[in-house]
Amino acid sequence: ASIVLLPGDGIGPEITQQAKRVLEAIGDRFGHEFTFQSQLIGGIAIDETGDPLPEATIQACRDSDAILLGAVGGPKWDDPSAKTRPEAGLLKIRKELGLFANLRPIKLFNQLIDASPLRREIIEGTDILFLRELTGGIYFGESSRTGSGPDETASQAMVYSVREVERIVRLAAQAAKGRGNRLTSVDKANVLEPSRLWRQTAARVMAEEFPEVQYDVVLVDAMAMHLINRPSDFDVVVTGNMFGDILTDEASMLPGSLGMLPSASLGSGGPGLYEPIHGSAPDIAGKGIANPLATILAAAMLLRHSLNAETEAAAIEKAVADVLAAGLRTADIARGGPSVSTDAMGDAVV
Amino acid sequence: ASIVLLPGDGIGPEITQQAKRVLEAIGDRFGHEFTFQSQLIGGIAIDETGDPLPEATIQACRDSDAILLGAVGGPKWDDPSAKTRPEAGLLKIRKELGLFANLRPIKLFNQLIDASPLRREIIEGTDILFLRELTGGIYFGESSRTGSGPDETASQAMVYSVREVERIVRLAAQAAKGRGNRLTSVDKANVLEPSRLWRQTAARVMAEEFPEVQYDVVLVDAMAMHLINRPSDFDVVVTGNMFGDILTDEASMLPGSLGMLPSASLGSGGPGLYEPIHGSAPDIAGKGIANPLATILAAAMLLRHSLNAETEAAAIEKAVADVLAAGLRTADIARGGPSVSTDAMGDAVV
Ligand SMILES: CC(C)[C@H](C(=O)O)[C@@H](O)C(=O)O
Ligand SMILES: CC(C)[C@H](C(=O)O)[C@@H](O)C(=O)O
Repeated sequence: ASIVLLPGDGIGPEITQQAKRVLEAIGDRFGHEFTFQSQLIGGIAIDETGDPLPEATIQACRDSDAILLGAVGGPKWDDPSAKTRPEAGLLKIRKELGLFANLRPIKLFNQLIDASPLRREIIEGTDILFLRELTGGIYFGESSRTGSGPDETASQAMVYSVREVERIVRLAAQAAKGRGNRLTSVDKANVLEPSRLWRQTAARVMAEEFPEVQYDVVLVDAMAMHLINRPSDFDVVVTGNMFGDILTDEASMLPGSLGMLPSASLGSGGPGLYEPIHGSAPDIAGKGIANPLATILAAAMLLRHSLNAETEAAAIEKAVADVLAAGLRTADIARGGPSVSTDAMGDAVV
Repeated sequence: ASIVLLPGDGIGPEITQQAKRVLEAIGDRFGHEFTFQSQLIGGIAIDETGDPLPEATIQACRDSDAILLGAVGGPKWDDPSAKTRPEAGLLKIRKELGLFANLRPIKLFNQLIDASPLRREIIEGTDILFLRELTGGIYFGESSRTGSGPDETASQAMVYSVREVERIVRLAAQAAKGRGNRLTSVDKANVLEPSRLWRQTAARVMAEEFPEVQYDVVLVDAMAMHLINRPSDFDVVVTGNMFGDILTDEASMLPGSLGMLPSASLGSGGPGLYEPIHGSAPDIAGKGIANPLATILAAAMLLRHSLNAETEAAAIEKAVADVLAAGLRTADIARGGPSVSTDAMGDAVV
């Protein structure tokens, strides 16, 4: 299988390197041949080519079986008057590859339960899979500016079609069948027309195609509350692009160990994109102390979703649980205790 | 001063009644003459008139100095195929009275710190004032449906004008000056055109008119995270309608005692609307066990913001702190311990 690495900025190269080593170990152990090539994205791509997502990167990704991304962005490229920004590369690759579904498992590692900002009895047992629609909604709606002075007005449209809602709801319902068999759809149907279309479409898909999956709907404001006081009540949650952006970031704080959380962005048929949830952490870049585990767990998702290699994925996840159980911690999850380097953590998992 | 009471649905009448008693006690003590009249809103207004916000209610509100609302909604009016819904009354009164700013103080009551879902060291010291823009943004943007079958598409526009942003940012900056002198503006300027206009306008207003107020900007997804792992770092937070809906509900969970949180909706000049944050709690309606303290604290905000009666407002807030210190708890905040009735809690504050 051919895998494109997009190390990106900040700690991106360090953590991607460890995940690559883990994939190589899996290749050796299970007799797979993985070929890797690195391509540019984000700030480093702007520096070297002027474009946060060069054509060569898009082409290599199209030709690959799967993509492993580190992280993009940093203060160097934060000038608001700059022509382009690293994040533009992210938005563009999602659209170019048709990656319409972002999967974010929010799972508590029991060994790290004391790192959670939530009290133990509330966070215990939390294991949610979010599916965020990633190529529609207000992110890609038409925008405009008109008027001037105090009357200057800016607009951007939230748009969803039945087709877009159907495909993400189907994926979410299928995921639910492989887990706790429960799906929650989140919208703001009491105010927004696209949410009403979302709610109707989701209800129809669930009734016609997945009558066996337990299904409910929650308003986005209520969901923002439930995540804090009863996170362990949810199984699979599906929602639109903007609500998903906010809710998955909120949820990512709950386990208290952002450095442990991977995500996958999938399309229909083409390669999937796998990455840690956390950012490029420019403040610790190059120091060899970044936590590679989220990227390693992203590699596990890559095996599962793009290469259909469930045993191999589970082997990585077990290795990560084992190194945690053995007491290994990078600085971000050490809570002041002894910590190991990025390399040492990679070694342990390998 | 003339005050319109809008008891609404569920526990609304019970809790509004206690807040009225407290205002009467304030009137006696400080020599004010308050006149009260009750009007219909929400589900009960639909039942009696077919309209969740009858014309008589709008007129009475327009003629008043301030409005105290209980809560609206309930399963009785939840039928998705109904012509109108209780919440429509809320949206309409905001728009009719030009209530463009929703103020939500999120303050931890130290006596209730163990009710918080967050660990003590994280929630301690939290005292945020949110200002949510309430009559613009995607809530009131143009919406449409086109096409059919899988191509059916629904759209709704997020729209902000410079004028709308200016007035809410000014109010927020003024509020910051009366508190910790720090203001955080929340947007999604890396993706949305209205957020870029918001960010530019806010920056200009702050630089030109409030150079002495410490000012920063945070993306909405990052804010959803910060509220969970460092809520005590914020002073005043200003944001748009949709982001405010989500973030204030998220924040309302942090103290763990929703029954304690009031809110105010203000326009320029006309009467303000004051209400508890919590809903109509139909499951406990009529049992005499609802917590009236959020509504009583909303009455304190009414005195402060609409009647310019700061001493009187502070007297109510002190009375609430005192009854908590004395150990009185309604069932929702009793954590299984002994609890008192709605009336008894009202008596104690009076
Ligand atoms: C960088 C930004 C455009 C992006 C988004 O909002 O989608 C990020 O927040 C994310 O969630 O991946
Ligand atoms: C009922 C609903 C329309 C309303 C809103 O979203 O504004 C509510 O959630 C609120 O926050 O007051």
